[in-house]
Amino acid sequence: MEKVILSIGGNALIRRGESGTIEAQFHNAESACGLVASFLKGGSGVIITHGNGPVVGNIVIRNEAAKGFVPPMPLYISDADSEGGLGFMIQQSVYNELKRSGISAEVVTLVTQVVVDRDDGAFSSPDKPVGPYYTSDEAERLQQVKGWVMREVSGQGMRRVVPSPAPRRIVEAPVIKKLSDDGVVVIAAGGGGVPVIENKDKTLSGIDAVVDKDRATTLLAKTTGVKSILNLTAIDCVYLDFEGAGRRPLRELRVEDARKYLKRGEFAPGSMGPKVEAAIEFIESGGVEVLITTPALMSEALRGRAGTRIY
Amino acid sequence: MEKVILSIGGNALIRRGESGTIEAQFHNAESACGLVASFLKGGSGVIITHGNGPVVGNIVIRNEAAKGFVPPMPLYISDADSEGGLGFMIQQSVYNELKRSGISAEVVTLVTQVVVDRDDGAFSSPDKPVGPYYTSDEAERLQQVKGWVMREVSGQGMRRVVPSPAPRRIVEAPVIKKLSDDGVVVIAAGGGGVPVIENKDKTLSGIDAVVDKDRATTLLAKTTGVKSILNLTAIDCVYLDFEGAGRRPLRELRVEDARKYLKRGEFAPGSMGPKVEAAIEFIESGGVEVLITTPALMSEALRGRAGTRIY
Repeated sequence: MEKVILSIGGNALIRRGESGTIEAQFHNAESACGLVASFLKGGSGVIITHGNGPVVGNIVIRNEAAKGFVPPMPLYISDADSEGGLGFMIQQSVYNELKRSGISAEVVTLVTQVVVDRDDGAFSSPDKPVGPYYTSDEAERLQQVKGWVMREVSGQGMRRVVPSPAPRRIVEAPVIKKLSDDGVVVIAAGGGGVPVIENKDKTLSGIDAVVDKDRATTLLAKTTGVKSILNLTAIDCVYLDFEGAGRRPLRELRVEDARKYLKRGEFAPGSMGPKVEAAIEFIESGGVEVLITTPALMSEALRGRAGTRIY
Repeated sequence: MEKVILSIGGNALIRRGESGTIEAQFHNAESACGLVASFLKGGSGVIITHGNGPVVGNIVIRNEAAKGFVPPMPLYISDADSEGGLGFMIQQSVYNELKRSGISAEVVTLVTQVVVDRDDGAFSSPDKPVGPYYTSDEAERLQQVKGWVMREVSGQGMRRVVPSPAPRRIVEAPVIKKLSDDGVVVIAAGGGGVPVIENKDKTLSGIDAVVDKDRATTLLAKTTGVKSILNLTAIDCVYLDFEGAGRRPLRELRVEDARKYLKRGEFAPGSMGPKVEAAIEFIESGGVEVLITTPALMSEALRGRAGTRIY
């Protein structure tokens, strides 16, 4: 069965400027899942991955706010919590969309573990900010007491930074593949999955890190035989000179050009950069295309009238 | 394939007197999952359900502590979060146990929705306490602002009470059954599942309630063709006159006697009562047996030397 991955950005679930109420998150999830029924009608299987940036941020803030009353959770448990909460919202949104469209298909969320290498270079240079801002004094104390790496972020205070290692194996991939081959809509690798390392005896342990959702999605696509990725984010398409005067949207983007522009620094790190990088890796390893756009423009983008198609 | 449900009580995951650090929860999860490998070796499929009482309590406390900074979550989202976090812990514990035992089987957690009736009597008489204790003033304010029902609980302050309606349908049951028929260890209906109601157009909506884990487990067992339930809790077996001078353990308990004792008030509501009730319902609808004991006594109980067998 032909299959597509719908990859929903964390910023498409809690949009910039939104406070992130559950109602708003549900609304955004419904909007992002609006085409699942038509993919199924077209005979295509659907796997859904999603980011969790703003959501896990809220979980970490709650965790810190209550640390005097209840034992704090490591970051990887917050990740797992977010797979449950966001998975539920997306799963119910898809279920409801299918009911309204008169399509009968099962929808499930699989809590997903992603193996990373213990000696990944990212562990010696953590750079992904998570959780609340702290004063310098608090930051120093956390650095001493918890061993966290703290960094000044955009002049607003100190934040914890964690490693973002490369995903090596998606532990639950065989079941994800099997279910999706059977026509089940599967939500998986939420927030890039819960990062785990493999110990010498092959057992797994959680580790405080963040796996980039787009890299996890690429790995999942490769492992499950998916050829197309629809990457939904907060920006309508890939631009050249995004911040500059010569801003120019790209409707189509060949991998060779993508690599060239990337090298030239056209795509912001932490924003469009990793999406384009993940798209290049996907296509070079056998993928056919990646479409990058917003939930609102999905339909137009599939007709070639919006978004960016990387191929 | 013969199948067993391992049903892990919330109080077996965070034990009374424990603060509930993640290390302790992992330790308890590992202990509760210690027999999964031997069930699989014996040719039996395994589905795991679990409570979330103390864990979702912690999530709700975190939620309240941070309500000034991040939008609060409804209870059903906290439930979904706990399915992610606890599911991850149990799934990794089982995975590791299987690796150590040299058994190859997949393990997954499915975020589970449980349909309840909107006109279930429980909605007009909520009685399940959740979350932190409040002062009378705070309680009154919450009652007015949020419409919460607040109740004085055991002289320690006011708590929110929520309805505990009967589970009617486990939305993801077909996939749970299929996976478990295929030999996959499935963790599902965590915390009794996320309670949802079915709207007129057949779509689902989350609702603030708590589904009793043992009732959800019974329903799941019926729906998936499971004949035996191993119910792990904090008390080693079912007792007559538990709080009294004539305290007497029951090694075996026929359904007729169970019903008689239940009527006589031998089993505490909110503790052994609902477990025995759920066991009666399970056996009366075609189940073979329910074994109630602690994780530490599982092996002994399976040999008839500990716990209580209801049949």
